[in-house]
Amino acid sequence: MQTRILTLEEIEQLAMRALVAAGTTAENARPLAIATAATEADGVASHGLAYTPIYCEHVQCGKVDGRAAPVVTQPRPGVVCVDAATGFAHPAIDAGFERLVPTARENGIAALAITNSYNCGVLGYHTYRLAQEGLLGIGFTNAPASIAPSGGKKPVVGTNPFSIAAPNDDGEPAVLIDQSASTIAKSEVMKHARENKPIPEGWALDVDGNPTTDAEAGLKGSMAPSGGYKGVGIALMTELLAAAMTGATLGIDASPFSGTAGGPPKTGQFFIAIDPGATSGGAFADRLSALVQAIRAQDGAHLPGDGRKSKRLAARADGVAVNVATLERIDAFLG
Amino acid sequence: MQTRILTLEEIEQLAMRALVAAGTTAENARPLAIATAATEADGVASHGLAYTPIYCEHVQCGKVDGRAAPVVTQPRPGVVCVDAATGFAHPAIDAGFERLVPTARENGIAALAITNSYNCGVLGYHTYRLAQEGLLGIGFTNAPASIAPSGGKKPVVGTNPFSIAAPNDDGEPAVLIDQSASTIAKSEVMKHARENKPIPEGWALDVDGNPTTDAEAGLKGSMAPSGGYKGVGIALMTELLAAAMTGATLGIDASPFSGTAGGPPKTGQFFIAIDPGATSGGAFADRLSALVQAIRAQDGAHLPGDGRKSKRLAARADGVAVNVATLERIDAFLG
Repeated sequence: MQTRILTLEEIEQLAMRALVAAGTTAENARPLAIATAATEADGVASHGLAYTPIYCEHVQCGKVDGRAAPVVTQPRPGVVCVDAATGFAHPAIDAGFERLVPTARENGIAALAITNSYNCGVLGYHTYRLAQEGLLGIGFTNAPASIAPSGGKKPVVGTNPFSIAAPNDDGEPAVLIDQSASTIAKSEVMKHARENKPIPEGWALDVDGNPTTDAEAGLKGSMAPSGGYKGVGIALMTELLAAAMTGATLGIDASPFSGTAGGPPKTGQFFIAIDPGATSGGAFADRLSALVQAIRAQDGAHLPGDGRKSKRLAARADGVAVNVATLERIDAFLG
Repeated sequence: MQTRILTLEEIEQLAMRALVAAGTTAENARPLAIATAATEADGVASHGLAYTPIYCEHVQCGKVDGRAAPVVTQPRPGVVCVDAATGFAHPAIDAGFERLVPTARENGIAALAITNSYNCGVLGYHTYRLAQEGLLGIGFTNAPASIAPSGGKKPVVGTNPFSIAAPNDDGEPAVLIDQSASTIAKSEVMKHARENKPIPEGWALDVDGNPTTDAEAGLKGSMAPSGGYKGVGIALMTELLAAAMTGATLGIDASPFSGTAGGPPKTGQFFIAIDPGATSGGAFADRLSALVQAIRAQDGAHLPGDGRKSKRLAARADGVAVNVATLERIDAFLG
């Protein structure tokens, strides 16, 4: 793979220009461009610039409305709602966070329910930002159905990730959990299918609910839930929060996040922000630090989020190696 | 195993009498006795009357203060805190729910942080009650460390369950997820050790972090997290909420829930109650019903909570078969 080193500023500007060229307003493109640079910094290349041409294509085909204006309401003192109006998730989340953060500080806890939304990229990027505000950030986002219920064969819930980020004094979250409900990301199975490679047993099930090593059969069947029925439980928890509690489209009814068919997916996101100072009587930082120390004290042990954090710090100094083929696909939108 | 059929009322009264005889105040014993009957009704015999002699013993040895008076505060509009004062978790949760429920309705979302607490029994019993109030109930409870961090060998977090219960029109939750972070309950490994039986691979790891089929070696080592590192993520999420966010004792510092050594465990519980009407603009019931239907429509498919629900309905009509040996152990406390 041929790569080119870009600074984080260059990545942000490139994403910004492509999104605007495809028909996104600058206001909507900016949070998405900033997230793209942050995602590349974290080393999650699959959700970084590689997604920019898909976003551009989706603006052009109407799968997402690049000119949408998210509508923010606050129906109860502790609840912020955003109708993303079939626009990008990122500006809707930004608009919601603007109210969520002060509301969580004032009330001790607050919720943000986002409906009529779109793929929000790396979920942990958003909870990370809540942790930077000194809040415990919890997030849920749903996706088109790809996991079957226990005892069943047909997908009913997406690989539905949840994320939790614990704030630290230095601004970088002490722990950042961001994990999907499946054994492996669906994009990995798609990659194996494209490359005509078998997949390891345990990644996916065929249409009859049997384990398969055939990537194509897995994509036609369902994704294996992580830890069996417990992974289904995680996916259902996320579906309850991100879809049922927001009034967004369920995974069974959502159009695919990939490709141009089916119109806007109208999926949802749900965030909970909690002020540790309100709930722990000031004990939070000590407890968190003791927990982190107990893990760091063990040879080879690591915390969720460690990998992304070390890449992030390196990327700020040295930039990121980006696939040249991705850059060429983006250039096509810049005309 | 010799059993005797008891009605739910008989189970409640029996637990009540034993707890009071052991030195618990009637006020503290009542919520525990009610939960014991509900737990037997749900078919979770391991946490029903079987626990009553342990509770009684713990009152007598001072591991739990049967005369404690939980202290409720509300430091922010959306946050209720309860200091369980090393008493039982159940009266502390009851005292907290009394404020949590109206606060969640008013604010749309509210949190309950319980510290200096004790084993809360079946976590899903508590979220179930929030769902009965028409709220989405989410719960977390921590436990003495038994799961190692990814890459490490020494336990740092408990099998730490979380639970979520979704309200339904008929009062019975439509979905009740209640799952621990480990592949299997620690009590199962303890049972195999007592009976000198090997455990299946995948249940536990030895002190060097290697898979083991020796139950004793597993108890000395650590419990296997469900789905590998993702199970560690669940355990950490729960530890963050139930311990760090409440100021309760971390799993690494908590005394064991079993046996009489070590004094009060002082672990914690964290609950979040959300009003679906506040966040979903009235769409919640329809979305939930569509999700449930999509699962029920599949032959053999089931929802988390289905098993307990059918047992509960049967137990209300027919009572529960209780192990006579358990009844004898309880009788010993009745003098």
